[in-house]
Amino acid sequence: MKISARNILDGRIVALTKGATTAHVRLEIAGGAIVTASITNEAVDELGLAVGSLASAVIKSSDVMIAVD
Amino acid sequence: MKISARNILDGRIVALTKGATTAHVRLEIAGGAIVTASITNEAVDELGLAVGSLASAVIKSSDVMIAVD
Amino acid sequence: MKISARNILDGRIVALTKGATTAHVRLEIAGGAIVTASITNEAVDELGLAVGSLASAVIKSSDVMIAVD
Amino acid sequence: MKISARNILDGRIVALTKGATTAHVRLEIAGGAIVTASITNEAVDELGLAVGSLASAVIKSSDVMIAVD
Amino acid sequence: MKISARNILDGRIVALTKGATTAHVRLEIAGGAIVTASITNEAVDELGLAVGSLASAVIKSSDVMIAVD
Amino acid sequence: MKISARNILDGRIVALTKGATTAHVRLEIAGGAIVTASITNEAVDELGLAVGSLASAVIKSSDVMIAVD
Repeated sequence: MKISARNILDGRIVALTKGATTAHVRLEIAGGAIVTASITNEAVDELGLAVGSLASAVIKSSDVMIAVD
Repeated sequence: MKISARNILDGRIVALTKGATTAHVRLEIAGGAIVTASITNEAVDELGLAVGSLASAVIKSSDVMIAVD
Repeated sequence: MKISARNILDGRIVALTKGATTAHVRLEIAGGAIVTASITNEAVDELGLAVGSLASAVIKSSDVMIAVD
Repeated sequence: MKISARNILDGRIVALTKGATTAHVRLEIAGGAIVTASITNEAVDELGLAVGSLASAVIKSSDVMIAVD
Repeated sequence: MKISARNILDGRIVALTKGATTAHVRLEIAGGAIVTASITNEAVDELGLAVGSLASAVIKSSDVMIAVD
Repeated sequence: MKISARNILDGRIVALTKGATTAHVRLEIAGGAIVTASITNEAVDELGLAVGSLASAVIKSSDVMIAVD
Protein backbone atom coordinates (compact mmCIF):
# COMPACT_ATOMS: atom_id res chain seq x y z
CA MET A 1 0.00 0.00 0.00
CA LYS A 2 1.29 3.48 -0.91
CA ILE A 3 -0.33 6.33 0.98
CA SER A 4 -0.81 10.05 0.35
CA ALA A 5 0.48 11.01 3.83
CA ARG A 6 3.76 12.85 3.24
CA ASN A 7 5.46 11.79 6.45
CA ILE A 8 6.61 8.21 6.95
CA LEU A 9 9.32 8.06 9.64
CA ASP A 10 10.93 4.64 10.09
CA GLY A 11 11.97 3.50 13.56
CA ARG A 12 11.70 0.91 16.35
CA ILE A 13 9.11 0.71 19.14
CA VAL A 14 10.69 1.53 22.52
CA ALA A 15 7.56 1.72 24.68
CA LEU A 16 3.91 0.69 24.45
CA THR A 17 1.18 1.50 27.01
CA LYS A 18 -2.39 0.25 26.60
CA GLY A 19 -5.28 2.16 28.20
CA ALA A 20 -8.92 1.09 28.27
CA THR A 21 -9.44 1.75 24.54
CA THR A 22 -6.41 3.85 23.51
CA ALA A 23 -2.73 2.88 23.45
CA HIS A 24 0.37 5.08 23.39
CA VAL A 25 3.25 3.83 21.24
CA ARG A 26 6.71 5.44 21.44
CA LEU A 27 8.93 4.98 18.42
CA GLU A 28 12.64 5.84 18.25
CA ILE A 29 13.36 7.15 14.73
CA ALA A 30 16.66 7.83 12.93
CA GLY A 31 18.71 10.44 14.78
CA GLY A 32 17.29 9.29 18.12
CA ALA A 33 14.14 11.43 18.33
CA ILE A 34 11.16 9.77 19.97
CA VAL A 35 7.75 9.98 18.25
CA THR A 36 4.60 9.20 20.28
CA ALA A 37 1.48 7.84 18.57
CA SER A 38 -1.94 7.48 20.14
CA ILE A 39 -3.75 4.58 18.41
CA THR A 40 -6.47 2.07 19.31
CA ASN A 41 -5.72 -1.05 21.35
CA GLU A 42 -7.32 -2.96 18.47
CA ALA A 43 -4.68 -1.63 16.06
CA VAL A 44 -1.87 -2.64 18.44
CA ASP A 45 -3.19 -6.21 18.49
CA GLU A 46 -3.97 -6.39 14.73
CA LEU A 47 -0.49 -5.13 13.75
CA GLY A 48 1.16 -7.31 16.38
CA LEU A 49 3.06 -4.34 17.80
CA ALA A 50 5.54 -4.95 20.61
CA VAL A 51 8.57 -3.24 22.10
CA GLY A 52 11.46 -3.87 19.70
CA SER A 53 9.28 -4.15 16.57
CA LEU A 54 10.37 -2.20 13.50
CA ALA A 55 7.58 0.23 12.58
CA SER A 56 6.95 3.61 10.93
CA ALA A 57 5.17 6.72 12.15
CA VAL A 58 2.73 7.93 9.45
CA ILE A 59 1.60 11.57 9.65
CA LYS A 60 -0.50 13.65 7.24
CA SER A 61 1.22 16.98 6.43
CA SER A 62 -1.94 18.88 7.39
CA ASP A 63 -1.47 17.57 10.93
CA VAL A 64 2.05 18.98 11.27
CA MET A 65 2.57 22.45 12.77
CA ILE A 66 5.79 24.48 12.68
CA ALA A 67 7.17 26.31 15.71
CA VAL A 68 10.12 28.65 16.15
CA ASP A 69 11.79 29.94 19.32
CA MET B 1 5.09 28.39 25.74
CA LYS B 2 4.99 24.70 26.68
CA ILE B 3 2.48 22.61 24.72
CA SER B 4 0.65 19.33 25.33
CA ALA B 5 1.58 17.94 21.89
CA ARG B 6 3.95 15.02 22.55
CA ASN B 7 5.99 15.38 19.36
CA ILE B 8 8.38 18.29 18.91
CA LEU B 9 11.02 17.43 16.29
CA ASP B 10 13.77 20.02 15.89
CA GLY B 11 15.24 20.69 12.44
CA ARG B 12 16.00 23.18 9.65
CA ILE B 13 13.73 24.30 6.82
CA VAL B 14 14.98 22.95 3.49
CA ALA B 15 12.05 23.89 1.25
CA LEU B 16 9.02 26.21 1.39
CA THR B 17 6.25 26.44 -1.23
CA LYS B 18 3.37 28.92 -0.91
CA GLY B 19 0.02 28.18 -2.58
CA ALA B 20 -2.97 30.53 -2.73
CA THR B 21 -3.78 30.10 0.99
CA THR B 22 -1.76 27.05 2.08
CA ALA B 23 2.03 26.60 2.23
CA HIS B 24 4.10 23.41 2.35
CA VAL B 25 7.18 23.53 4.57
CA ARG B 26 9.81 20.76 4.44
CA LEU B 27 12.00 20.39 7.51
CA GLU B 28 15.12 18.24 7.78
CA ILE B 29 15.22 16.77 11.29
CA ALA B 30 18.00 14.97 13.18
CA GLY B 31 19.00 11.78 11.38
CA GLY B 32 18.17 13.33 7.99
CA ALA B 33 14.47 12.49 7.71
CA ILE B 34 12.33 15.12 6.00
CA VAL B 35 9.05 16.18 7.63
CA THR B 36 6.45 18.04 5.54
CA ALA B 37 4.02 20.46 7.19
CA SER B 38 1.00 22.04 5.54
CA ILE B 39 0.34 25.42 7.23
CA THR B 40 -1.27 28.74 6.28
CA ASN B 41 0.64 31.36 4.28
CA GLU B 42 -0.22 33.73 7.13
CA ALA B 43 1.70 31.55 9.61
CA VAL B 44 4.74 31.45 7.29
CA ASP B 45 4.82 35.26 7.24
CA GLU B 46 4.06 35.72 10.96
CA LEU B 47 6.82 33.28 12.00
CA GLY B 48 9.21 34.70 9.43
CA LEU B 49 9.92 31.22 8.05
CA ALA B 50 12.52 30.88 5.29
CA VAL B 51 14.74 28.17 3.87
CA GLY B 52 17.60 27.71 6.33
CA SER B 53 15.59 28.77 9.41
CA LEU B 54 15.85 26.58 12.51
CA ALA B 55 12.33 25.34 13.34
CA SER B 56 10.48 22.42 14.96
CA ALA B 57 7.70 20.17 13.69
CA VAL B 58 4.94 19.96 16.33
CA ILE B 59 2.56 16.99 16.07
CA LYS B 60 -0.22 15.84 18.44
CA SER B 61 0.13 12.10 19.27
CA SER B 62 -3.48 11.49 18.23
CA ASP B 63 -2.46 12.53 14.70
CA VAL B 64 0.29 9.91 14.44
CA MET B 65 -0.46 6.50 12.95
CA ILE B 66 1.78 3.43 13.09
CA ALA B 67 2.48 1.20 10.10
CA VAL B 68 4.37 -2.06 9.71
CA ASP B 69 5.55 -3.86 6.57
CA MET C 1 2.24 -1.83 4.56
CA LYS C 2 -0.37 -2.41 7.30
CA ILE C 3 -1.52 0.72 9.12
CA SER C 4 -3.09 1.42 12.52
CA ALA C 5 -5.83 3.63 11.01
CA ARG C 6 -9.09 1.74 11.58
CA ASN C 7 -10.89 3.00 8.46
CA ILE C 8 -9.86 1.83 5.02
CA LEU C 9 -12.71 2.32 2.53
CA ASP C 10 -12.07 0.90 -0.92
CA GLY C 11 -13.42 2.69 -3.99
CA ARG C 12 -12.75 4.38 -7.34
CA ILE C 13 -11.71 7.98 -8.00
CA VAL C 14 -14.55 9.89 -9.67
CA ALA C 15 -13.15 13.42 -9.52
CA LEU C 16 -9.79 15.09 -8.90
CA THR C 17 -9.17 18.85 -8.62
CA LYS C 18 -5.68 20.29 -8.10
CA GLY C 19 -5.24 23.67 -6.40
CA ALA C 20 -1.97 25.57 -5.98
CA THR C 21 -0.64 23.14 -3.35
CA THR C 22 -3.70 21.11 -2.27
CA ALA C 23 -5.82 18.70 -4.31
CA HIS C 24 -9.35 17.42 -3.67
CA VAL C 25 -9.96 13.79 -4.56
CA ARG C 26 -13.51 12.35 -4.65
CA LEU C 27 -13.79 8.60 -4.25
CA GLU C 28 -16.94 6.54 -4.82
CA ILE C 29 -16.97 3.73 -2.25
CA ALA C 30 -19.12 0.58 -1.98
CA GLY C 31 -22.81 1.49 -1.63
CA GLY C 32 -22.32 4.63 -3.73
CA ALA C 33 -21.30 7.14 -1.05
CA ILE C 34 -18.74 9.72 -2.13
CA VAL C 35 -15.75 10.41 0.13
CA THR C 36 -13.72 13.59 -0.39
CA ALA C 37 -10.02 13.73 0.56
CA SER C 38 -7.86 16.82 0.70
CA ILE C 39 -4.25 15.81 -0.02
CA THR C 40 -1.12 17.44 -1.44
CA ASN C 41 -0.62 17.80 -5.21
CA GLU C 42 2.70 16.01 -4.63
CA ALA C 43 0.86 12.95 -3.29
CA VAL C 44 -1.47 12.92 -6.33
CA ASP C 45 1.55 12.82 -8.65
CA GLU C 46 3.56 10.32 -6.56
CA LEU C 47 0.63 7.86 -6.32
CA GLY C 48 -0.26 8.41 -9.97
CA LEU C 49 -3.88 9.17 -9.07
CA ALA C 50 -6.34 9.76 -11.89
CA VAL C 51 -10.10 9.60 -12.42
CA GLY C 52 -11.00 5.92 -12.71
CA SER C 53 -8.11 4.66 -10.51
CA LEU C 54 -8.95 2.13 -7.81
CA ALA C 55 -7.97 3.64 -4.44
CA SER C 56 -8.87 3.58 -0.74
CA ALA C 57 -9.79 6.33 1.69
CA VAL C 58 -7.74 5.93 4.89
CA ILE C 59 -9.07 7.66 8.02
CA LYS C 60 -7.86 7.52 11.64
CA SER C 61 -10.74 6.74 14.04
CA SER C 62 -9.87 9.80 16.15
CA ASP C 63 -10.74 11.94 13.12
CA VAL C 64 -14.27 10.53 12.79
CA MET C 65 -17.17 12.26 14.54
CA ILE C 66 -20.67 10.85 15.01
CA ALA C 67 -23.83 12.85 14.36
CA VAL C 68 -27.51 12.09 14.90
CA ASP C 69 -30.62 13.89 13.64
CA MET D 1 -27.10 22.39 11.53
CA LYS D 2 -25.23 22.25 8.20
CA ILE D 3 -21.49 21.65 8.49
CA SER D 4 -18.47 22.36 6.27
CA ALA D 5 -17.12 18.80 6.65
CA ARG D 6 -17.40 17.21 3.20
CA ASN D 7 -17.97 13.64 4.38
CA ILE D 8 -21.24 12.62 6.03
CA LEU D 9 -21.73 8.86 5.78
CA ASP D 10 -25.09 7.62 7.01
CA GLY D 11 -25.34 4.26 8.78
CA ARG D 12 -26.32 2.28 11.89
CA ILE D 13 -24.28 1.67 15.05
CA VAL D 14 -23.23 -1.98 15.26
CA ALA D 15 -20.83 -1.79 18.22
CA LEU D 16 -19.99 0.65 21.01
CA THR D 17 -17.15 0.27 23.54
CA LYS D 18 -16.58 2.81 26.33
CA GLY D 19 -13.10 3.26 27.83
CA ALA D 20 -12.21 5.45 30.79
CA THR D 21 -12.70 8.70 28.83
CA THR D 22 -12.82 7.60 25.17
CA ALA D 23 -15.40 5.43 23.40
CA HIS D 24 -15.12 3.53 20.11
CA VAL D 25 -18.24 3.50 17.97
CA ARG D 26 -18.52 1.19 14.92
CA LEU D 27 -21.01 2.23 12.28
CA GLU D 28 -22.16 0.08 9.35
CA ILE D 29 -22.64 2.38 6.34
CA ALA D 30 -24.32 1.78 2.95
CA GLY D 31 -22.56 -0.99 1.06
CA GLY D 32 -21.65 -2.75 4.32
CA ALA D 33 -18.35 -1.04 5.13
CA ILE D 34 -17.68 -0.47 8.84
CA VAL D 35 -16.47 2.96 9.98
CA THR D 36 -14.89 3.30 13.44
CA ALA D 37 -15.08 6.59 15.36
CA SER D 38 -13.19 7.46 18.51
CA ILE D 39 -15.26 10.00 20.50
CA THR D 40 -15.66 11.02 24.14
CA ASN D 41 -17.86 9.02 26.52
CA GLU D 42 -19.61 12.33 27.20
CA ALA D 43 -20.64 12.59 23.54
CA VAL D 44 -21.99 9.03 23.58
CA ASP D 45 -24.22 9.89 26.54
CA GLU D 46 -25.27 13.32 25.23
CA LEU D 47 -26.26 11.94 21.80
CA GLY D 48 -27.91 8.92 23.39
CA LEU D 49 -25.94 6.55 21.16
CA ALA D 50 -26.65 2.83 21.39
CA VAL D 51 -26.20 -0.24 19.22
CA GLY D 52 -28.92 -0.09 16.57
CA SER D 53 -29.17 3.72 16.51
CA LEU D 54 -29.19 5.42 13.12
CA ALA D 55 -26.20 7.80 12.97
CA SER D 56 -23.75 9.38 10.54
CA ALA D 57 -19.96 9.45 10.45
CA VAL D 58 -18.75 13.04 9.90
CA ILE D 59 -15.21 13.48 8.57
CA LYS D 60 -13.36 16.63 7.45
CA SER D 61 -11.76 16.11 4.00
CA SER D 62 -8.37 17.24 5.35
CA ASP D 63 -8.45 14.18 7.61
CA VAL D 64 -8.88 11.72 4.73
CA MET D 65 -5.81 10.14 3.12
CA ILE D 66 -5.75 8.19 -0.15
CA ALA D 67 -3.90 4.90 -0.58
CA VAL D 68 -3.25 2.68 -3.60
CA ASP D 69 -1.94 -0.88 -3.79
CA MET E 1 -28.08 17.46 13.50
CA LYS E 2 -26.34 16.91 16.88
CA ILE E 3 -22.64 16.08 16.67
CA SER E 4 -20.15 14.33 18.96
CA ALA E 5 -17.57 17.15 18.61
CA ARG E 6 -17.34 18.75 22.07
CA ASN E 7 -16.52 22.27 20.88
CA ILE E 8 -19.17 24.40 19.18
CA LEU E 9 -18.24 28.09 19.44
CA ASP E 10 -20.90 30.48 18.13
CA GLY E 11 -19.85 33.68 16.37
CA ARG E 12 -19.96 35.89 13.24
CA ILE E 13 -17.77 35.69 10.13
CA VAL E 14 -15.44 38.69 9.95
CA ALA E 15 -13.22 37.62 7.05
CA LEU E 16 -13.27 35.03 4.28
CA THR E 17 -10.43 34.32 1.80
CA LYS E 18 -10.77 31.75 -0.99
CA GLY E 19 -7.67 30.06 -2.40
CA ALA E 20 -7.55 27.66 -5.35
CA THR E 21 -9.26 24.85 -3.42
CA THR E 22 -9.05 25.90 0.24
CA ALA E 23 -10.69 28.88 1.99
CA HIS E 24 -9.81 30.55 5.28
CA VAL E 25 -12.76 31.74 7.36
CA ARG E 26 -12.25 34.01 10.39
CA LEU E 27 -15.01 33.96 12.99
CA GLU E 28 -15.34 36.38 15.90
CA ILE E 29 -16.71 34.44 18.87
CA ALA E 30 -18.13 35.61 22.22
CA GLY E 31 -15.52 37.56 24.18
CA GLY E 32 -13.95 38.85 20.95
CA ALA E 33 -11.48 36.05 20.20
CA ILE E 34 -10.98 35.27 16.51
CA VAL E 35 -11.09 31.63 15.37
CA THR E 36 -9.67 30.72 11.94
CA ALA E 37 -11.02 27.72 10.02
CA SER E 38 -9.49 26.20 6.91
CA ILE E 39 -12.30 24.60 4.86
CA THR E 40 -12.97 23.78 1.20
CA ASN E 41 -14.22 26.43 -1.23
CA GLU E 42 -17.07 23.99 -1.97
CA ALA E 43 -18.20 24.14 1.67
CA VAL E 44 -18.13 27.95 1.61
CA ASP E 45 -20.47 27.95 -1.40
CA GLU E 46 -22.74 25.15 -0.13
CA LEU E 47 -23.22 26.81 3.28
CA GLY E 48 -23.61 30.22 1.67
CA LEU E 49 -20.96 31.71 3.96
CA ALA E 50 -20.25 35.44 3.74
CA VAL E 51 -18.76 38.14 5.93
CA GLY E 52 -21.41 39.02 8.51
CA SER E 53 -23.04 35.55 8.55
CA LEU E 54 -23.76 33.99 11.93
CA ALA E 55 -21.86 30.68 12.14
CA SER E 56 -20.20 28.32 14.61
CA ALA E 57 -16.71 26.87 14.79
CA VAL E 58 -16.91 23.10 15.35
CA ILE E 59 -13.80 21.39 16.76
CA LYS E 60 -13.25 17.80 17.92
CA SER E 61 -11.66 17.68 21.41
CA SER E 62 -8.90 15.39 20.12
CA ASP E 63 -7.80 18.25 17.87
CA VAL E 64 -7.36 20.70 20.76
CA MET E 65 -3.97 21.06 22.45
CA ILE E 66 -3.27 22.86 25.72
CA ALA E 67 -0.36 25.25 26.20
CA VAL E 68 0.98 27.09 29.24
CA ASP E 69 3.52 29.93 29.48
CA MET F 1 7.95 29.24 21.23
CA LYS F 2 5.77 30.73 18.44
CA ILE F 3 3.61 28.22 16.58
CA SER F 4 1.97 28.12 13.15
CA ALA F 5 -1.42 27.09 14.60
CA ARG F 6 -3.75 30.05 13.96
CA ASN F 7 -5.95 29.54 17.02
CA ILE F 8 -4.63 30.27 20.50
CA LEU F 9 -7.53 30.86 22.91
CA ASP F 10 -6.50 31.98 26.39
CA GLY F 11 -8.49 30.81 29.41
CA ARG F 12 -8.54 29.01 32.77
CA ILE F 13 -8.91 25.29 33.44
CA VAL F 14 -12.30 24.57 35.04
CA ALA F 15 -12.28 20.74 34.91
CA LEU F 16 -9.75 17.97 34.34
CA THR F 17 -10.55 14.22 34.06
CA LYS F 18 -7.82 11.62 33.64
CA GLY F 19 -8.62 8.29 31.93
CA ALA F 20 -6.24 5.33 31.58
CA THR F 21 -4.07 7.11 28.96
CA THR F 22 -6.15 10.10 27.83
CA ALA F 23 -7.28 13.14 29.85
CA HIS F 24 -10.08 15.62 29.12
CA VAL F 25 -9.34 19.24 30.03
CA ARG F 26 -12.12 21.87 30.03
CA LEU F 27 -10.99 25.46 29.64
CA GLU F 28 -13.18 28.53 30.15
CA ILE F 29 -12.12 31.15 27.58
CA ALA F 30 -12.95 34.86 27.28
CA GLY F 31 -16.70 35.37 26.84
CA GLY F 32 -17.44 32.28 28.96
CA ALA F 33 -17.38 29.57 26.28
CA ILE F 34 -15.97 26.21 27.40
CA VAL F 35 -13.37 24.47 25.19
CA THR F 36 -12.66 20.76 25.74
CA ALA F 37 -9.27 19.29 24.89
CA SER F 38 -8.39 15.60 24.79
CA ILE F 39 -4.67 15.22 25.59
CA THR F 40 -2.39 12.56 27.10
CA ASN F 41 -2.12 12.06 30.86
CA GLU F 42 1.63 12.52 30.37
CA ALA F 43 1.07 16.04 29.00
CA VAL F 44 -1.16 16.92 31.97
CA ASP F 45 1.64 15.93 34.36
CA GLU F 46 4.46 17.51 32.34
CA LEU F 47 2.64 20.86 32.04
CA GLY F 48 1.53 20.70 35.67
CA LEU F 49 -2.08 21.32 34.69
CA ALA F 50 -4.67 21.67 37.43
CA VAL F 51 -8.12 23.20 37.88
CA GLY F 52 -7.60 26.96 38.17
CA SER F 53 -4.41 27.04 36.04
CA LEU F 54 -4.19 29.71 33.34
CA ALA F 55 -3.76 27.93 29.97
CA SER F 56 -4.50 28.30 26.27
CA ALA F 57 -6.31 26.07 23.80
CA VAL F 58 -4.18 25.67 20.64
CA ILE F 59 -5.98 24.54 17.48
CA LYS F 60 -4.72 24.22 13.90
CA SER F 61 -7.06 25.99 11.44
CA SER F 62 -7.32 22.82 9.34
CA ASP F 63 -8.98 21.16 12.33
CA VAL F 64 -11.76 23.77 12.58
CA MET F 65 -15.05 23.21 10.77
CA ILE F 66 -17.78 25.80 10.22
CA ALA F 67 -21.47 25.10 10.79
CA VAL F 68 -24.60 27.16 10.17
CA ASP F 69 -28.17 26.60 11.34
